[in-house]
This record gives sequence, C-alpha cells and structure tokens, in this order.
Amino acid sequence: MNWVAILMGSNSDWPVVKKTTLVLDKFGIEFEVRVTSAHRTPHQTVAYVEEAVARGCSVFICAAGLAAHLAGVVAAHTTRPVIGIPIDGGPLSGVDSLYSTVQMPGGVPVATVAIGSAGAKNAGFLAAQILALSNDELTQKLTQDRQSNIENVMAQNQSVQEDLE
Amino acid sequence: MNWVAILMGSNSDWPVVKKTTLVLDKFGIEFEVRVTSAHRTPHQTVAYVEEAVARGCSVFICAAGLAAHLAGVVAAHTTRPVIGIPIDGGPLSGVDSLYSTVQMPGGVPVATVAIGSAGAKNAGFLAAQILALSNDELTQKLTQDRQSNIENVMAQNQSVQEDLE
Amino acid sequence: MNWVAILMGSNSDWPVVKKTTLVLDKFGIEFEVRVTSAHRTPHQTVAYVEEAVARGCSVFICAAGLAAHLAGVVAAHTTRPVIGIPIDGGPLSGVDSLYSTVQMPGGVPVATVAIGSAGAKNAGFLAAQILALSNDELTQKLTQDRQSNIENVMAQNQSVQEDLE
Amino acid sequence: MNWVAILMGSNSDWPVVKKTTLVLDKFGIEFEVRVTSAHRTPHQTVAYVEEAVARGCSVFICAAGLAAHLAGVVAAHTTRPVIGIPIDGGPLSGVDSLYSTVQMPGGVPVATVAIGSAGAKNAGFLAAQILALSNDELTQKLTQDRQSNIENVMAQNQSVQEDLE
Amino acid sequence: MNWVAILMGSNSDWPVVKKTTLVLDKFGIEFEVRVTSAHRTPHQTVAYVEEAVARGCSVFICAAGLAAHLAGVVAAHTTRPVIGIPIDGGPLSGVDSLYSTVQMPGGVPVATVAIGSAGAKNAGFLAAQILALSNDELTQKLTQDRQSNIENVMAQNQSVQEDLE
Amino acid sequence: MNWVAILMGSNSDWPVVKKTTLVLDKFGIEFEVRVTSAHRTPHQTVAYVEEAVARGCSVFICAAGLAAHLAGVVAAHTTRPVIGIPIDGGPLSGVDSLYSTVQMPGGVPVATVAIGSAGAKNAGFLAAQILALSNDELTQKLTQDRQSNIENVMAQNQSVQEDLE
Amino acid sequence: MNWVAILMGSNSDWPVVKKTTLVLDKFGIEFEVRVTSAHRTPHQTVAYVEEAVARGCSVFICAAGLAAHLAGVVAAHTTRPVIGIPIDGGPLSGVDSLYSTVQMPGGVPVATVAIGSAGAKNAGFLAAQILALSNDELTQKLTQDRQSNIENVMAQNQSVQEDLE
Amino acid sequence: MNWVAILMGSNSDWPVVKKTTLVLDKFGIEFEVRVTSAHRTPHQTVAYVEEAVARGCSVFICAAGLAAHLAGVVAAHTTRPVIGIPIDGGPLSGVDSLYSTVQMPGGVPVATVAIGSAGAKNAGFLAAQILALSNDELTQKLTQDRQSNIENVMAQNQSVQEDLE
Repeated sequence: MNWVAILMGSNSDWPVVKKTTLVLDKFGIEFEVRVTSAHRTPHQTVAYVEEAVARGCSVFICAAGLAAHLAGVVAAHTTRPVIGIPIDGGPLSGVDSLYSTVQMPGGVPVATVAIGSAGAKNAGFLAAQILALSNDELTQKLTQDRQSNIENVMAQNQSVQEDLE
Repeated sequence: MNWVAILMGSNSDWPVVKKTTLVLDKFGIEFEVRVTSAHRTPHQTVAYVEEAVARGCSVFICAAGLAAHLAGVVAAHTTRPVIGIPIDGGPLSGVDSLYSTVQMPGGVPVATVAIGSAGAKNAGFLAAQILALSNDELTQKLTQDRQSNIENVMAQNQSVQEDLE
Repeated sequence: MNWVAILMGSNSDWPVVKKTTLVLDKFGIEFEVRVTSAHRTPHQTVAYVEEAVARGCSVFICAAGLAAHLAGVVAAHTTRPVIGIPIDGGPLSGVDSLYSTVQMPGGVPVATVAIGSAGAKNAGFLAAQILALSNDELTQKLTQDRQSNIENVMAQNQSVQEDLE
Repeated sequence: MNWVAILMGSNSDWPVVKKTTLVLDKFGIEFEVRVTSAHRTPHQTVAYVEEAVARGCSVFICAAGLAAHLAGVVAAHTTRPVIGIPIDGGPLSGVDSLYSTVQMPGGVPVATVAIGSAGAKNAGFLAAQILALSNDELTQKLTQDRQSNIENVMAQNQSVQEDLE
Repeated sequence: MNWVAILMGSNSDWPVVKKTTLVLDKFGIEFEVRVTSAHRTPHQTVAYVEEAVARGCSVFICAAGLAAHLAGVVAAHTTRPVIGIPIDGGPLSGVDSLYSTVQMPGGVPVATVAIGSAGAKNAGFLAAQILALSNDELTQKLTQDRQSNIENVMAQNQSVQEDLE
Repeated sequence: MNWVAILMGSNSDWPVVKKTTLVLDKFGIEFEVRVTSAHRTPHQTVAYVEEAVARGCSVFICAAGLAAHLAGVVAAHTTRPVIGIPIDGGPLSGVDSLYSTVQMPGGVPVATVAIGSAGAKNAGFLAAQILALSNDELTQKLTQDRQSNIENVMAQNQSVQEDLE
Repeated sequence: MNWVAILMGSNSDWPVVKKTTLVLDKFGIEFEVRVTSAHRTPHQTVAYVEEAVARGCSVFICAAGLAAHLAGVVAAHTTRPVIGIPIDGGPLSGVDSLYSTVQMPGGVPVATVAIGSAGAKNAGFLAAQILALSNDELTQKLTQDRQSNIENVMAQNQSVQEDLE
Repeated sequence: MNWVAILMGSNSDWPVVKKTTLVLDKFGIEFEVRVTSAHRTPHQTVAYVEEAVARGCSVFICAAGLAAHLAGVVAAHTTRPVIGIPIDGGPLSGVDSLYSTVQMPGGVPVATVAIGSAGAKNAGFLAAQILALSNDELTQKLTQDRQSNIENVMAQNQSVQEDLE
C-alpha cells in the first residue's frame, strides 16, 4: 500500500502543514508526519528518508521556512517524488523559502507548490494526483473533488448575489 | 503504457524545453510535444488535454514565460500531475513566470521546478520519478543516474585539482 | 445598452471588488457580478464569457489573487476589453497577482490597474472611461467627478491647515 | 472618426513603441505619435493632451521608462482611456516603470500592459479592442486576428514537430 | 526670507509628513503645508508651485505613495531643489513610491529620502542643510543637533547597560 | 581572555540583540554591549572599535536596520572578524539592511547572518564557533548544543504526534 | 566661492561619475574629484570631508556600488548637503546600492538620485539647484537648460515624425 | 597547523572560487578545494566534512548557486565556522543563492559574504581574519593588506586626476 511521508523543519510549521494532512485524510491516503530538520537533525533526516523508502513510502512532502533546505536534502537521498512547501514565517514573507525550495539544480527536482496555506493544501492534492496514477478509486475521488469545487464556487457566487440585492 | 505530454506556449521556448525531452529520452519515456497557448489557442489547449488524458497520458509538463498561465490552465482541466517550467525570456528574468506558475490556489496544484534550463531538466526527472512509482525498471535507471551524478561530480573535482597544480 | 461583467476568483475577493461596483453605481453603469474561477470552474468561466458577450457585455473586469489567471483566461476568450485587478491576499502582497495579470504576451492584452483597493476603484473608473467614448452623458459625469476630486482635495487641505493652527 | 495618440518620453523608446504603431496599422486605426516628456516638456504635454481631446482623440497610449510618470500625467488631464507601456531601459529592467505606471491612486486609472515589447504590441491591441466597441468592422478584424493567432501557433507547432523527427 | 513648501498627495499622508514639520519647527524654518495631488489637482499643483516660487519659496518637499508622481511633477515646474518622501501606505510597502520618486530621468532630479517616517524626518533635515548654506545660524543649529544626537545615543546606551545588569 | 563586542545602531534594536547575548551567556563567553551609531556617533564608534581591539576584543557583532552601515564601518577599522545582523524594523522588512550588510566590496568582509531574530541567535553561535577554534571547552559546549538540538527536535516531533492522535 | 566635492568608492565608478562632472562644467561650477573608500580608506575619507568643509565645500556628491556606505559615512561627518549616486556595477543591478544609500535613519539624510547614469547626471543638476539658491546667474542657467530640454525633446519628436513618413 | 576547506557545488563555480584561493595564497594559508554537491553527492559531502574536521580543518568555505544548500548542509555537520559564497549563475542573479545561504535558522549559522566575485574574495579575507585570532603573523599581514588597500585607492585617485586634466 502506498503512503506519504510529511516532514517539517520545526513544529512551528505544524499549523500550516496540518492542512496537508486534512487533504490526505479526505482522500483516504495514509501518511506519517515527522518533525525533522535538515540543519539540526541531519543524520536523523537522512536515516528516516532511507527507512521510509524501505517501508514503501511513495511520496515525500517537506515544509520549511527561511533558507528552506529540507526538501532539497530529502530529494538528494531518494528518487521518490519530493514535494516542497515554502513556509512564510520570517521577515521575507516566504520569498526566501520559495527560492530555496524551487531553484534546485538539474537532476534533483523538488516539486514546489505555493507559499504557505495554499501550498500546504496543494501538496496534499499533488500527492493524491501522483498516487492516483495507479489507483482508479483515488482518481474518482479527485474527479469528485473537482465537482465539489464547482459547487463550492457556485455557493460563493450565490452568497455574493445575495449581498448585492 | 505511460507517456508524458509536453506543452509550451511558444516555439521560442523550444530550445529550453528540448532539455526536458533529452532527459525523457535518456530514461526511455515516451512523450509528445505540442506548441499550444493558454491565451492564443485556449480551445485547442483544453481539447488536447482532454484527448491526451483519454489516450492515457500520465503526466503533463508545461513551459511558459511572462504571465505563465499554461500550466495552471492545463491543471484546471485534468487531475493528472502537471509540472510547470517557468521560462525566463522577458525583462523580469522569469520571476513573473515563476510566480504565475507556483502560486496556484488550493485544490489545483502545479508542481513547479526551477526557472529556465535547470527547471527544464528537472521537469524530465520529476516526470520520471512519478512514473517510476509503478515501474521498477525506471526506478533502477533513476538510481543509476544518481550514481553517474557522483561520477560526474568526481570528474569535475578532478579537473579542478588539475587546474590547481 | 452597454454593461460590465465583474468576475472574481473567490468570494474572499468580494470586499475589495465591492469598491468597483460602488464606482459603477455612481456612474449609473449596469453590471453583473460573478464568482467564477479560472482553475476551479474553467468551463463555467468560459461559458459565462461567451454568453455575456452574446448578451452585449462591453467590458470585463476580473479580480484574482496569487497566480491570478482569471483575467488572462477571460481575455483569451473574447476581444472585448478586459480589466485586471490584482488582489493582495497572500504572503507576497500582490506582487504575484500583479505579474500574473499584467505580463500578458502580445496579442491578448489585460488592462491592469493597481493592486487591491486602489485598483478596484480604478477598474470601475476605467470601465466608465471606455464606455464614455460612445456616451456623452457618461463623459459629463466623469468630468464632474474630476471636479469633485478637486473639491475633495481642497477639503483635505483645509483639514490639514486646521490641524496646523 | 476615432484616433489614437501615442506619446513617449524620449525617442530612445521609439524602437519599442514602433511595435504599437504596427498593430494599429494592421487594424487600420489612425494615430499620431509624439515625443513629449512629463518632466522635460510638461506644459507641452498637457497642451497636447487638451488639444488632442478637442480634435477627437479617443485613446491615449503612453510609453516611458524609469520613474515613468507620463501616463499618469496624461491621465490627470483627460477622462479618455489612457494605456501605459512600462519601458525596460534602465538598470531595474522595468520594475520601476511598471510600478510607476500601474500603481495609480483611485480615480485616475492607467490601463497598464506588460513591460517592453509585449506591452507595446498589447497597447495597440487594447486600443483596438476599446475602439471596436463602436466599430463592428474592427471587431471582425480582431476576431480574425485571433484566428490567425491559432494558425500561427499551429505553424510553430509544426516546426517543432519537424525538429523532433 | 527663505521658506519651504511641503506638499502631500492626500491627507492620509499627514501623520507621516507632520514629522517633517516638527524638524523644520525645531530649526525655526518657515514652511507652508498643502494637500495637492499630481493626479487629482494637477492644475492647482502647478499653479501653487509657480506662485510659491514667485513668493520666494526655496525648497519643495513632496510626499506621496503608490505611483508617487508628485515630486516629479513639481520638479518639472521649478529649478528649486525638490525633496521626495516615498510613503509606504499600500500593499508594496513603499517600494513602488520609492522607485517612482528616485528613478527620475537626467535633467530633472528629485532628492529622495528614506521611505516613510525616517524619510519624513530627513526631508526636514535635508531642507535645513540646504538653507544653512547661506545661513550661519542654521549651520550652528545643525551642528548642535548632531551634538544632541550623540547625547541621545549615549542615553540609549546607558539604558541598555542598566537592562544588562 | 577572548571577548566579544556587540554594537547596535539604536536601542530599538535591543530586544532582538538581546537574543545574541543569551547565546553568548549560555556558552560562558564574555561580551560588552554598546549602542553606537555609524551615522550619529561616528567618532565614538571608531574610537570604541580601536579601544576594544586594544583591550583584546576578538569578534565584533553589529546589528543595524535600514541602510545598515554599522558592520561595514566597524569592519573598515579592524581586521578582527565582524558579524553583521540585519534588523527588520522598517517598511522593507530588512531587505535593505541585508543588502547594506552583506554586499561588502572585496577586502573588507562582514560575516552576515539572517535578518532579525534568527540572525541574532546565529551571531552568537558564529562568534562561539570562531572562538572555539582555540578553546576546546567551547568546542565541547557547541557539540553538546547540537545534541540538545536533536533532543529539542525530537520533543517537537513528539508533541506533533500527540496532536495527530 | 562655492564648490562641490565628488567622491567615489573606486575608479571603476569613474565612467559613470564623469557624467556628473560634465553637468557641473556646463554650469561653470567648480568641483574636486576624489577616489576614496568608506571601507578601504575610512580615515582619509573623513579627513578629506573635514578639510573640504574647512575649504568652503558646499555640497558633497558620493557614488558607490554594492553595500554603498560612502554617502552615509560622509553625511555622518558634515552638515553640508550630501547627494548619493547608487552605482549598478554588481549582480543586483544597483538595488543594493540604492537601498544602502537612500534608507538613511532620521537625522542624517542623503539626497539620493537614480541608479547609474541618470543619477550621475541628476547629482550634477541637484548640486546646481542647491547652489543656485544664492546665485542668480546659476538660476538663469538652470532655467535656460530647461528651455534647451524643450528644444531637445522637440528635435527628438521631429526625428520620429521623419521616421514615420 | 590550521587550514581551510573550500567546497563548491559544481566546477562551473570554479572561475569565481579561484579568487578565494588567490586571497588565501597571498596570506600563506593552506587550503584544499573540492567539487562536492549537497544534492548530487550528499554522502561524499558529509564524509568529507567529517574527515576534514578530523584532519584539523579550521574553516569551511562553501560556494553554490540557485537553491544554494551546500553551506547549510556543511554547517549542519560541523561546529567549525562555515563561510557561504552565493554564486550568481542563474536567471535570478544570485538573489536565490543569497537567500538560500544567509537565511539559516537559529543554531546553525552560515557566515555569508557578497554575491559572486566580491564575496569570493571576502570569503578568503574572512577566513584569514578568523585564523589570525591565534596567529599574530597573519594579523600583521592583514594589517599590511589594509595599508596596501590605501595605496591602491590613492593610485586609483591619481589615475582619475590625470584623466581630469
């Protein structure tokens, strides 16, 4: 069975990363969450990556702020897809973590999503889309989610129409 | 059989996007290339996405510059993973295309890679990593590529040592 | 009779976009408001644009944040003037939505106004200026508004003089 | 008969602005071109704007670099639509002229297009779209141009296919 | 007798600009304050500049936010020194007003100071420094102010030492 | 005995700089703190640097915001290592102080750390690392601190696991 | 007699700074030029400033790139007006030198002009405007220069008209 | 005996990093150079760091471009001072590598120097300053270098004076 490993550099990232877990839960995808730092627990980070791969982990999701190296360090130790969420906790509003995450050199990609909350949600969606390639039930759920998006937008539209009257 | 669709907004992006195809070729991954624009051929773009999905396309790779909407438009019409390459052709050196590609709202992710050439290569690697989840031979090739990375870096190191003597 | 279609990507944009409607109301210009998303309701967005054009819509105003594709997507499906309002809801303060809106490639323009509230007002003024080209009464109203601007600035000046005494 | 006034702050902007005139020529739209500066010929600039309006000018297009005030100054003296082209001639690659052009305060809009060449073309297209609101023949030409865009993209696609073989 | 004219584009700038007047008051420099806008009251702005020069105004100080054209427009109508204060009221934190103020083309300078409060104070100091060139008493006051700066820093240092104990 | 001099441009920087002193205290490193400004007390700053070097100061740590010249001015007057902390007090969130601190010309380096709080802590750690080169006890303490980092991350991980249950 | 001191941090700045001297020459203003560095010759820089003031220097113009501290250091040692020219020699295109020059804290202003060539010219114009406050002949020359600006723009306009025919 | 390890992520960084070695050579400091990548040879990088520390390496200098993780990864595995040189090879001119290098979280500092060539030289100077704390001869050389800086600036000044005549 496929599962997702979610890593974050500090528990201060948890309120944002929790949104990733809500998306995975919605799609019934198994996951593990670990606080582990590229800089403060480098050996443990690498050990976890190698062990998770051995236990069948399919996708890694890594969230970090400032000089966000976590996704890159994980990507250096596995050929599984690594999704990076730049966190906007510091004075530069996440531009630093975006550049540190997305500007990876050729050969070691990080699939980068938006800074902060939007990205945390999309990391969950992207992981689901990747796993759905070999899981038709998951594909159906993703398709249904798109349909509920439509209903959600229509409800939002309705509320604005009511405000206009 | 899994295959990859590579879309670009203009043939001026082709010299960069060609690097994506070289990576896919190296891993023996089938792909199609299309010039199709979110703004100038919107109907054709959507039609191609729907048709490609019907023909079993697994991953989309989209390259565009300036207000780079192509990856987002494709992502809006499929639940297949969509990889975005921001192209640096205009006066803002690709910051505009990076932001237009990566800052997608929750629910419709684009897996964004680095601006320009590094990103074009990594789009190919990321597609390979995704497809390798259900293809052990591809996983082996990715692992071998990591090994050849090491040899390549060692050769670079050797050339610097010779320059130092 | 000429009318304006106002589209926004999410109802979270409504408090800002409401300022557009106040300007149009002031000038007696008819408008419709729709929540519709380039990414979550792409088919509905295109269908609305085509239908609105068929019903005589003259100008589109589109507000969106983050990777703001809405104005570009609308512009791809009509030759009516499209005005884009970049919304500053995310961590990058609207630089992302500004670049995503204004940096359109040649052939498919979006008339971009300022980020956030100032832009929301100016979208209304710009639509009025466009419609006034074939509406002398509207031109008179715009000229009168410029006169009331002067009176407003003079009143502001008076209040500062009083504070100085 | 409707016509367009094209102003630029310096003749160093002319190679870029010429692209605007090519678009207007293609659509058979009459125009005048003037080098006039917000800072070096402020009285002449205002006099020209007032006189052009008196002679029936419908749309102003203003191109300037650095602290690009020309579009804003013109917009302050007319209620006709003013389109601003930020020019990328200085060390900041046009970010300065973009911000100086687009960030107009409420009440005096400038319809801003992309920095440099893409924007110069789009200023012409946007002017045409505005004038087409009362000119069915022009609307037809714009629709045909969209069709030729499609053919152009298809030809680009063809050339890439040939390169791939 | 020399005096200073202080212009601001909106009375929302007054809380910041008031700091300029406190500095001028401290040095006993006469000044006038006017709310006048480059975009909403362009004729009145130019008329005031010409009249102020005729009444012996020596230095202009102009504060504005967003696409801050006020200092540039004033500089275009006088050869008196013009000091520009970029105001940080909008979503871009004053980067837009800084670029719009400082990036003036050759021949029409604006002496730009820091964004916001620090700049508002320094506009007062810079005006005093300019006027002091022909006013020895003012030079003495400026020299004394530098001495009081030293005492102020020493007092700050003392308070930190006490906090350390 | 080796000691560290900590300089800051204003006592408004003290709440951030205090974090530097907590790190030095933890490692038992002696230090002095001075409020002294590159611009308001330039002579005193230089005099202090020369006197501190004469009294055996090994490392300087300089914190400043806006156009942060303090570290550069100190570095110009000593060949002791100078660590610069960019402070994020103004409208540009510390990008200005970062560039003013790190972009030193060849020959006069400033060892720059992160903007704000993270940088204030790291200035203390970096000073400790430098002094540890000739102090084995300090090296041991630094190694122990890395171990306590690990325990800290593990505790953070534990708290997230509990939140997940 | 009034004169201007022009300082630059390196002779690599001289091709740009030469444009300042051409403007001063045009207005018959005396000046001295010195290569002196805030970081490499700090004592000589301060000594020159004090000596120049003693010899009657009225205005300082300082050009520097990267972490451009020269203007701020000079401003710290004199109450004469100090004009700063940010030089765009490094990878950040002068944004670093602009921020390092303009973002001075309250009490020690630097009158900042545009980055690079436009700023070098405007430093000369601004110095002339300051000196003209007590020199009617210089005021006349500045007024005449504005007139020649007009003629220059008209000639540029004429050349564009010829190109259009 | 103290020595310095210089690491770079790719041999494309070598032309810049060579400037570091020239500075170290000038001061008679021993060094090793290695091409080793945080992402392509992560195990070798960590192994080298641990082995170099065991062999008495005192200071690490790390140069990398794009998402420059090398300095951070090295810093995570040693308590020796780590100096980071951001390289400006990609489309973002080194802003990405600057942020990735300098914005390290508390506890694991990287002493960051300027982007590109100026930084490469200063990495050598900073290493020398650190080693000089326990090496009086090196301190003397650094002091002499400051004196030769003065002579160099004076020679630059002389050449400008000759150009002025």
